[in-house]
Amino acid sequence: MIILNGGSSSGKSGIVRCLQAVLPDPWLAFGCDSFVDAMPARMQESDGGIVFAADGGVSVGEDFRALEAAWMHGIAAMARAGARVVIDDVFLAGAGSQQRWRAALGGIGVLWVGVRCESAVAAGREVARGDRTTGMAALQAELVHAGVVYDLEVDTTRTESLVCARTIAAHLG
Amino acid sequence: MIILNGGSSSGKSGIVRCLQAVLPDPWLAFGCDSFVDAMPARMQESDGGIVFAADGGVSVGEDFRALEAAWMHGIAAMARAGARVVIDDVFLAGAGSQQRWRAALGGIGVLWVGVRCESAVAAGREVARGDRTTGMAALQAELVHAGVVYDLEVDTTRTESLVCARTIAAHLG
Amino acid sequence: MIILNGGSSSGKSGIVRCLQAVLPDPWLAFGCDSFVDAMPARMQESDGGIVFAADGGVSVGEDFRALEAAWMHGIAAMARAGARVVIDDVFLAGAGSQQRWRAALGGIGVLWVGVRCESAVAAGREVARGDRTTGMAALQAELVHAGVVYDLEVDTTRTESLVCARTIAAHLG
Amino acid sequence: MIILNGGSSSGKSGIVRCLQAVLPDPWLAFGCDSFVDAMPARMQESDGGIVFAADGGVSVGEDFRALEAAWMHGIAAMARAGARVVIDDVFLAGAGSQQRWRAALGGIGVLWVGVRCESAVAAGREVARGDRTTGMAALQAELVHAGVVYDLEVDTTRTESLVCARTIAAHLG
Repeated sequence: MIILNGGSSSGKSGIVRCLQAVLPDPWLAFGCDSFVDAMPARMQESDGGIVFAADGGVSVGEDFRALEAAWMHGIAAMARAGARVVIDDVFLAGAGSQQRWRAALGGIGVLWVGVRCESAVAAGREVARGDRTTGMAALQAELVHAGVVYDLEVDTTRTESLVCARTIAAHLG
Repeated sequence: MIILNGGSSSGKSGIVRCLQAVLPDPWLAFGCDSFVDAMPARMQESDGGIVFAADGGVSVGEDFRALEAAWMHGIAAMARAGARVVIDDVFLAGAGSQQRWRAALGGIGVLWVGVRCESAVAAGREVARGDRTTGMAALQAELVHAGVVYDLEVDTTRTESLVCARTIAAHLG
Repeated sequence: MIILNGGSSSGKSGIVRCLQAVLPDPWLAFGCDSFVDAMPARMQESDGGIVFAADGGVSVGEDFRALEAAWMHGIAAMARAGARVVIDDVFLAGAGSQQRWRAALGGIGVLWVGVRCESAVAAGREVARGDRTTGMAALQAELVHAGVVYDLEVDTTRTESLVCARTIAAHLG
Repeated sequence: MIILNGGSSSGKSGIVRCLQAVLPDPWLAFGCDSFVDAMPARMQESDGGIVFAADGGVSVGEDFRALEAAWMHGIAAMARAGARVVIDDVFLAGAGSQQRWRAALGGIGVLWVGVRCESAVAAGREVARGDRTTGMAALQAELVHAGVVYDLEVDTTRTESLVCARTIAAHLG
């Protein structure tokens, strides 16, 4: 199992698609975006769910946390049942988020990958995407890495997604 | 847990979104579409993965079945961990598909719902959607229900998604 | 040229795709959605652009109107240059919107089609789509038809998109 | 009016969104993608329309060319009616494509911008996007620039979209 953590617009999804292309075995890709899509529409803008503030801030409530914990247990079970799984997530709680994953995964082996991108560059890519709340990229660029321990870090500021993916694939050996 | 089964363009996704809106508790929605999205792009048109033929036929290979089994175990684990989960699926193997779900779910209680739609109407909705291979709706309309046992059936031919969702919600008690 | 007018979630887009499928000649489809997509992201939530209020209300500003007028002239020029064009629009200003189109189109022949859908049914389909502000369908259901003169009206409440499209195609005769 | 030309995955769309963000006046964005979306679904895989071959090759037929000519005339009319318009296109016929635009635009002033990207880098970004036929980026990287005359060229190989957009905006004066 591979878990990528990085801020919004740091390039996680592109790396995931490249990983799926370069790794010879089939890997399933899930992440915070597909998890949020699975929630009821009303939770995507509510106190108990997830709120995207106008300044780019993101906050989540108790219902969100409860569903997320169950979802993490489900992902762990897929891995235990034999699927290769790559996750891209945004550790809004930094080390606390990593701890949540560890609790759900039990003893499953994980390659922890930090995806860095300079704040100004991520903010520019956010503009280029055009579908994200302005400010999220800058707010999250450092925050999500606070206290997190990685096996490997990649930086998309000046390195293409495919090159980052090959670096990660080489670590899986 | 709720599992909806119906052919392409029978209206499953609309019913799922309405269910998430009318049920007071938050339900997570997953299904064959989000599962296929999680696969590597190359498996979405390959012998070992899933192939959408020009006539609307769909066939899946061994790699697909192996990943699907792991995915089903993961969904079961989410439910066991406390999440309410609604699935929309296309039982290409009819009763065989239902059997695969039963094997993965163990003793978890499931409301099995058949989603019917007259073949000609589903084929027309396929045209209106514009993003599906022409012919899938007609080919699957009967096929996916062969030998499947339901707690409840709804028919979208002349009944709106929201009304079908309310019927299903009422069955949950 | 064909112009369809109807409220949000009344089924215009589905009818357009069916029209493109049943008409033997190729028709180009444009509409208010593709026009809004062409605007800068910042105008999609601003006073001068278009604002989608939480209650489903939609208001547009001066910059929007100016760009829209130029866009309408461009659509007219495509038709004059020989393209068959079908438009789906939401006449927020009712007869005033129709007048704007007439001014832009000059003498080009248009088949004006009203797309009706009972308010409660459109509101239910809005829930089933899951990606629209709740309330838009109900607010617009009557409003957009105020004072508009049609060659033909279709009602999607109990008639499929493909059947509506065939009715419209027959009128082109 | 601004016309950007570059191969698939060279970064045109990102530059367009950044241009819309950095330019103080509102600019409308259209391009080959939105034009293809406007065509009937059946033309998106047919001899008279547009065909995306498995090797990444793209060919277009007579019906496509006829509709495209009308569309170009429409875009010209929008500009003449006062709209600022930015186009991103793929000049499959190189200088011939530029000539088609010139014929449609008459005397309208255009800033012609070439968007370059090294073939290998564009091919990697194609993998990272995951939704394009593999091979298109490499096949088009040089081909689309053959014989085309530009006012300005940008290269996204090692320069971010936002920086390219600022360079273009500076040229507008």
